[in-house]
Amino acid sequence: MRLSRYFLPILKENPKEAEIASHRLMLRAGMIRQQAAGIYAWLPLGKKVLDKVCAIIREEQNRAGALEIWMPTIQSADLWRESGRYDAYGLEMLRIKDRQERELLYGPTNEEVITDIFRAHVKSYKNLPLNLYHIQWKFRDEIRPRFGVMRSREFLMKDGYSFDIDYEGAKAAYNRVFVSYLRTFARTGLRAIPMRADTGPIGGNLSHEFIILADTGESAVYCDKHFLDMTIPPADVDFSDDAAMADIVKQWTTPYAATDEMYDEELWAKVPQSDQIAARGIEVGHIFHFGTKYSLPMHATVMGPDGQEHPVSMGSYGIGPSRLVAAAIEASHDENGIIWPRAMSPFDFGIINMKPGDQKCDDLSEKLYQSLINAGFDPLLDDTQERAGSKFATMDLIGLPTQIIIGPKNAAQNEVEIKDRKTGHKEILPFDAALRRLTEA
Amino acid sequence: MRLSRYFLPILKENPKEAEIASHRLMLRAGMIRQQAAGIYAWLPLGKKVLDKVCAIIREEQNRAGALEIWMPTIQSADLWRESGRYDAYGLEMLRIKDRQERELLYGPTNEEVITDIFRAHVKSYKNLPLNLYHIQWKFRDEIRPRFGVMRSREFLMKDGYSFDIDYEGAKAAYNRVFVSYLRTFARTGLRAIPMRADTGPIGGNLSHEFIILADTGESAVYCDKHFLDMTIPPADVDFSDDAAMADIVKQWTTPYAATDEMYDEELWAKVPQSDQIAARGIEVGHIFHFGTKYSLPMHATVMGPDGQEHPVSMGSYGIGPSRLVAAAIEASHDENGIIWPRAMSPFDFGIINMKPGDQKCDDLSEKLYQSLINAGFDPLLDDTQERAGSKFATMDLIGLPTQIIIGPKNAAQNEVEIKDRKTGHKEILPFDAALRRLTEA
Repeated sequence: MRLSRYFLPILKENPKEAEIASHRLMLRAGMIRQQAAGIYAWLPLGKKVLDKVCAIIREEQNRAGALEIWMPTIQSADLWRESGRYDAYGLEMLRIKDRQERELLYGPTNEEVITDIFRAHVKSYKNLPLNLYHIQWKFRDEIRPRFGVMRSREFLMKDGYSFDIDYEGAKAAYNRVFVSYLRTFARTGLRAIPMRADTGPIGGNLSHEFIILADTGESAVYCDKHFLDMTIPPADVDFSDDAAMADIVKQWTTPYAATDEMYDEELWAKVPQSDQIAARGIEVGHIFHFGTKYSLPMHATVMGPDGQEHPVSMGSYGIGPSRLVAAAIEASHDENGIIWPRAMSPFDFGIINMKPGDQKCDDLSEKLYQSLINAGFDPLLDDTQERAGSKFATMDLIGLPTQIIIGPKNAAQNEVEIKDRKTGHKEILPFDAALRRLTEA
Repeated sequence: MRLSRYFLPILKENPKEAEIASHRLMLRAGMIRQQAAGIYAWLPLGKKVLDKVCAIIREEQNRAGALEIWMPTIQSADLWRESGRYDAYGLEMLRIKDRQERELLYGPTNEEVITDIFRAHVKSYKNLPLNLYHIQWKFRDEIRPRFGVMRSREFLMKDGYSFDIDYEGAKAAYNRVFVSYLRTFARTGLRAIPMRADTGPIGGNLSHEFIILADTGESAVYCDKHFLDMTIPPADVDFSDDAAMADIVKQWTTPYAATDEMYDEELWAKVPQSDQIAARGIEVGHIFHFGTKYSLPMHATVMGPDGQEHPVSMGSYGIGPSRLVAAAIEASHDENGIIWPRAMSPFDFGIINMKPGDQKCDDLSEKLYQSLINAGFDPLLDDTQERAGSKFATMDLIGLPTQIIIGPKNAAQNEVEIKDRKTGHKEILPFDAALRRLTEA
C-alpha cells in the first residue's frame, strides 16, 4: 500500500478523552474513531490488525475441530425467557421492540441462540462432540463505557460453544479449547496466563480467564513467574488425544495464578516470594463449563447409547478480538507509539522514502516495495511529500516492527537503512543484502 | 473436512414456509436456520459460501483502490437528524433507546456515518479520491420479511462510499465501482446485467442496479440479449485510467436494459425483437451517485486547489452477499438440489466413500482426500455410515460441482468415478488419472 493512497488520519495531539495508552494510540494512529459513546468505527489500519487477530483465532479454532457459523446480532427475547435470563440480565442488555412490537435484543452473548440451533438439529450422541463458534458483534450497554475498544458497548467477540453427552466429554472439550487458546494468544505474540475465574452471569462451576500482564490492566492478578517461560503446545499437538490435552491443561493450571476475585492468601503464600508476580492484568479470553444450565430449561437433549435422553453438557468460550488489539498495545508501546508483535502488525514493513522526487530515492523505494510484494509481503510505502521528521514520527506511531529508510545519501550508494522499531537499532545495508535480510526473516 | 465431524443438518422434507427454491434449498442443505422473523443464523455450509463471496468482493474492491473499514451496526439518531433522514426513513428503520434514553438505531445503510468520518478527518482535495467500504450487518425492519435470506431483516451488506471534489471525479469513482462490480459478479460465476435504476431513498440522479436473471426474480426486467456475451474486464484492467473506465461503462450501458420501474416502451421497441429478453431478475448490487446530498447538510467539505471550500461529491455502492448466495441458487439448481458455480462452492470436491469399513474403499477415499488437501484444495469426504442412496442425495443437494464416488467394485480395480453435478456426466478413471484430472482442472 502506498501511503499517498491510504486513509491514515493521524492525530498530532493527544486526544483528551483517552485515559489509557491503547485508547490514545489507537486514536492517534488513525485506527479507530468513536461514533457514539462506546461505539467505534474501525478505520483501515485498525481493520487490518483486527483481521490478523481474527485470522489467527479462526485457524486455531478450526485446528481444534470447532466449526464456524454466523449467528445474527438481533435475538428474540422469548429465547431468553426460556433460559430465565431475560429478566435476570439487567440493564446491560440492549432491549429493542420492532415495528410490530415484538421484543428483541442485541445479543450480549449467544448461549440461548446456540442451544436453540442445537436442539433443532442434533438428536443423537453420535453427532457429538460438537463445537460451534462465530466471530460477531455484540452489544453490552455499559453504564460507563471507557478506555476505547477495551470496554466499549459494541464490540467484536469470538464466542464458541461445545456440546457433549456428559461431563467427561464436556471436560475434554473444555481442555481442547484451553489448549487452542494458549496457541491463539501465543501466535498473536502475547503471553496470556490462564487463571481460575469466577463464572458470573454465564453460570457454571469451572472457568478460566486468560490474562495478559500490563501495567494499565483493569484488575490485580497474582501468578507464579514460571508461567512466563512455559512451553506453548506446538501446531501439530493432537487435539483428538484427550489425555494429552488434559496433561497440558494440568501443566498450565498447576502453578498459582488468580485474579483478584479468586485470590487466596494461603495459596499465594506458598509460592516462593522470588517467584511471585503481583501485577495488573487484562482479560482477553474467558472459558466456561456450565453443564446443563441451558440445556435443561431449553430441552436440548440427545439420545445416548443407553437409549435414554440426556441433556447435553455445555461450555462456552470467548475471545474479544477488538479488546485483544487494545491489550496488545497496552503490553507493547513506548513514548513514540505502538510496537506491534509481528503477527498483528497491519503491514509487514514500513518503507520511508525520505525524498520523493529524488530519482535514486524513488527508484530504490519502488524497487524495494515491489520486491517485497513479489515475495509475498504486505509493505506500506510512505511516498508522501511530508517532511522527514513527520514521516519518522508517523512510522514510529503506527508501530510496524521493521522500518526501511531510504534517504538520498544512502540511496546514492545503493544502500538503505533498516530500523527495528522495538530496539531502535539501525543498520545500513546494500540494497540486495537488505532485501535478503527482510525476506528471509 | 470429514462429514462425520461436520455439522450439516440436512432436512429430508421440504420446509413448508419456503416459497422459493433458494430458501427451500438453503434450509434443506443445512446452510441457514431462521432464528426470528427475517433473522437467520448461517450454519457451517452457508458460512463457507458467504465467506467465498465476501473474499471475492474484497479482492475486487481492493483492486479498484477502495479501502476496507468496519463501521458499527449501532448508530446515533442525531447523525440522521443532520441529514434529514431520521424522520423520513420510516418504519423500516429499527429505532432503539439505550439505558440512558439516548436515541440510537440499527444501521440500514451508512451514508451518515461515513460522511461523519470523512468530515472529521479529510480537509483537503489532496487526500482525494477516497473510497471506503465495509462488509457489515444491516437491519431493515421489513413489514413482511420473506424468501429466506433474499429479503431478510438482518442481512450482510458490502457498502462502499466515494468522495471526490467535483462531479467529474465522482463520475470517475462511479465508473471504477461499476467496472469492479462487473468483475465481482463474473468471478462469483454469475452474469449480472447493469440496469439504469431509480435512486429511491438514497437520493441522487445516477444509479444502476446489477441484476441476475432468474425465473423467480422479484421484478420484471427488459434487456438486450447481447449482455449475455459481453466481455468482462480482465484482472489487469487499469483502474487508474479514467478514460478506459468510462469506455467500459459506456459499452455496458449502451444496449437496452431496464427494470420495471424504469421501463420505456419506445426504447424497448427499438431493440430488435429477436434480441429482446423480457425476464425476471434479482437485484444483487446497486450503485448511486448522489453528489452533495449528504455533504451539504452535514458540512463535509474539502479545500480545493482554488483555496475555496467545496462540499464533496459522493456516491454509494452496495452488494448484498447474503442475497447474492440466494440469487446464485435461484439461477442454478435442479430438482435434486443446488448446483454451485465453482467459485462459490463451499467445498472444492465431494468425495463419497460408498462403503466405509471396506478396506479398499477406505484406503482410496483417504488417499484421495489427503492428496487433494496436499494439492491445496478443500474437499468434503463423506465418511459416514449412511446408506449409498442417502449419500448421493446429500451430495447432490449441497451442490458441490464435482463428486468423486468410491465404491467397492471400482475401488477393487483401483478406480474411482467422477461425476459432474451439473451435467450428471459420470466417468470411471484409474485413481492416478482421476487425481490428475481433479488437480489440473
